Amino acid sequence: MNHMDYMRRAIELAQEAVTSGDVPVGCVIVKDGKIVGEGYNRREACGDATAHAEVEAIRAACKTLGSWRLHECTMYVTLEPCPMCAGAIINSRIHTLRYGAKDEKAGACTSVLNLFEEQFNHKPRIYQGLMEKECETLLQSFFQGLRKKT
Amino acid sequence: MNHMDYMRRAIELAQEAVTSGDVPVGCVIVKDGKIVGEGYNRREACGDATAHAEVEAIRAACKTLGSWRLHECTMYVTLEPCPMCAGAIINSRIHTLRYGAKDEKAGACTSVLNLFEEQFNHKPRIYQGLMEKECETLLQSFFQGLRKKT
Repeated sequence: MNHMDYMRRAIELAQEAVTSGDVPVGCVIVKDGKIVGEGYNRREACGDATAHAEVEAIRAACKTLGSWRLHECTMYVTLEPCPMCAGAIINSRIHTLRYGAKDEKAGACTSVLNLFEEQFNHKPRIYQGLMEKECETLLQSFFQGLRKKT
Repeated sequence: MNHMDYMRRAIELAQEAVTSGDVPVGCVIVKDGKIVGEGYNRREACGDATAHAEVEAIRAACKTLGSWRLHECTMYVTLEPCPMCAGAIINSRIHTLRYGAKDEKAGACTSVLNLFEEQFNHKPRIYQGLMEKECETLLQSFFQGLRKKT
């Protein structure tokens, strides 16, 4: 599997979120070529403000690997992480972050600010723009659907 | 119960963390005078990078209230929240944050930076210094204990 395969899986996961009316964001965490954690946004589904795709995937990966340290892992996520999720990436020591679409309103990895440039004790590598168009379309379709309903 | 009573409960919770070798941080969330969520740091205990006291308490409060929106809630936490936890406070719309000790290395509510001054869609009120001395002592005793062991 290559970068695009992992992001395709993240997009698939994001689509799961839509059934509960959640904003479609999906995430996978990969170590040594294997997916060790997956998640999608379940804020509405679970009534839990912390149930973002990235936090769900980090919790799953920690469980799979039996450790809170995700040193050699890469995260693939369809949308730029918010401050909570960027902070969770720092806390879990994820090595590399690859995200698709930018989040101009809440992104904490370049858009509103870049948490990884601050003086915290871990700085992951970041790559933006993997399958950006597909990730943007996913969100645009969701919000267009919402507008039609109202 | 008053502010100090809630912080005393947070300190009690923090002490629970020590048994698993976790840094002692405790947190309670209060609505209309009642505790609706509690948590303490269980990173080591659960092997979960996201299991900070504040995230645990937010998840518990969301469950109690049946909503991810904690609009009218006050969080009491013994230590200044890190970026993940400050982000979770933004995401859950917590009204007021009262914390004890500063965290010069990882604090995201004034020390390293202040996430609540950035252009995100929620800004809680913050009060620092409630039972600061007791909260600091809690951490100092823990780290002194660790140094004796090594």
